[in-house]
Amino acid sequence: MSTGLIALDADDTLWHSETLFTVTQDSFRALLQPYLQGDWAGDELYATELRNLQHYGYGIKAFVLSMIETAIEVTGGRVPGAVIQQIIDLGKAMLAAPVELLDHVAAVVPALAERAPLLLLTKGDLFDQEAKLARSGLAEHFRHVEIVSDKTPATYRHLLAKYDLAPERFLMVGNSLRSDIIPALTVGARAVYIPYAQTWAHELVADAELPADIVELAHIGLLPAWLDAQG
Amino acid sequence: MSTGLIALDADDTLWHSETLFTVTQDSFRALLQPYLQGDWAGDELYATELRNLQHYGYGIKAFVLSMIETAIEVTGGRVPGAVIQQIIDLGKAMLAAPVELLDHVAAVVPALAERAPLLLLTKGDLFDQEAKLARSGLAEHFRHVEIVSDKTPATYRHLLAKYDLAPERFLMVGNSLRSDIIPALTVGARAVYIPYAQTWAHELVADAELPADIVELAHIGLLPAWLDAQG
Repeated sequence: MSTGLIALDADDTLWHSETLFTVTQDSFRALLQPYLQGDWAGDELYATELRNLQHYGYGIKAFVLSMIETAIEVTGGRVPGAVIQQIIDLGKAMLAAPVELLDHVAAVVPALAERAPLLLLTKGDLFDQEAKLARSGLAEHFRHVEIVSDKTPATYRHLLAKYDLAPERFLMVGNSLRSDIIPALTVGARAVYIPYAQTWAHELVADAELPADIVELAHIGLLPAWLDAQG
Repeated sequence: MSTGLIALDADDTLWHSETLFTVTQDSFRALLQPYLQGDWAGDELYATELRNLQHYGYGIKAFVLSMIETAIEVTGGRVPGAVIQQIIDLGKAMLAAPVELLDHVAAVVPALAERAPLLLLTKGDLFDQEAKLARSGLAEHFRHVEIVSDKTPATYRHLLAKYDLAPERFLMVGNSLRSDIIPALTVGARAVYIPYAQTWAHELVADAELPADIVELAHIGLLPAWLDAQG
């Protein structure tokens, strides 16, 4: 096949990420429970995150600031400073968490790198994503790294121009229909969707918005065989 | 001259930044004063920032998290939630602040772009720096943009390789001896130092560490004439 560049998403494509957010949200809810009446679902956090996207973009520091803001809001300002500090410490623990590769990744990434140059293409916080790549043990296999503030069709068009590639020679692989698959297909690139067990609500896409011909694999270990089958 | 690429730092080289931090720190001190005994210099904030660099890197979100942590620390946890929210709002105001270009920048950047391709080379928060470049009105003059998590000799070596340039064809222009000038000179590139009125303590360099032959200009408006004089 004539793939000129294989672009791989990072969070929840190469390594676990969303589970870290889910576990942290559980801790966050437990921290605030004593300051609230009755059971609390914690839905306000997601609303705060969405509202703050325009200010902060994606990433763990943005998430921590949204947790703090939510804690103040839902407790009517009664949350003690010591609990805010615990929220900050939850964030630091996320930033320092070990990078856990998904199944098959450690074997498949070097194999893919022999077929075509690899591009790590991820959004989020520059400092955090660079640190995770360094800790992942995968850095040497990536020819290029692009950490972007968002993944829109314009992002993919910019990358095609930057790497001087015809769209059909660019393959995007990722777990987010909204960020990895639909915008890549929109600009004429190819895309392989590999769902992760959990998806952040913001990345969900209504069925009606889905192109009919999405290529979906159960896990990244199937990608080399799929590439072979493309001829 | 044979300059292959002119790299320009952004914060306090193209637009004002440190003044925004200074003004915000004054507001931060005023917010906390009622919860403290006696006058408070606010020195703990800088210590918190330095301690958190390893977790957060540079940028406004990191600064806000350090302000919150300092507020909790110096008040022994007594800072009310409403004041933490005001600190968060100070951060959002920083992120939304208008981009104020330094004198001469609006005229000089287009003129420089006619001499050599321009690279915007800045550290800090990806989302924030992209937003500032977009608001600056200067984006069209930059062929390349690199937002990096730090500026070390390794950063400059990586850029020389990426853009396939001999070191002497790379010119770095910026206001930080620590980030812009010394590491660029270390890898054999050229550098022009244009001091800003205020420098964050972390970017200061002891005189003893300074190379003897640093080129210093009073303002960026002098750069084209300096380039002419290089022949």
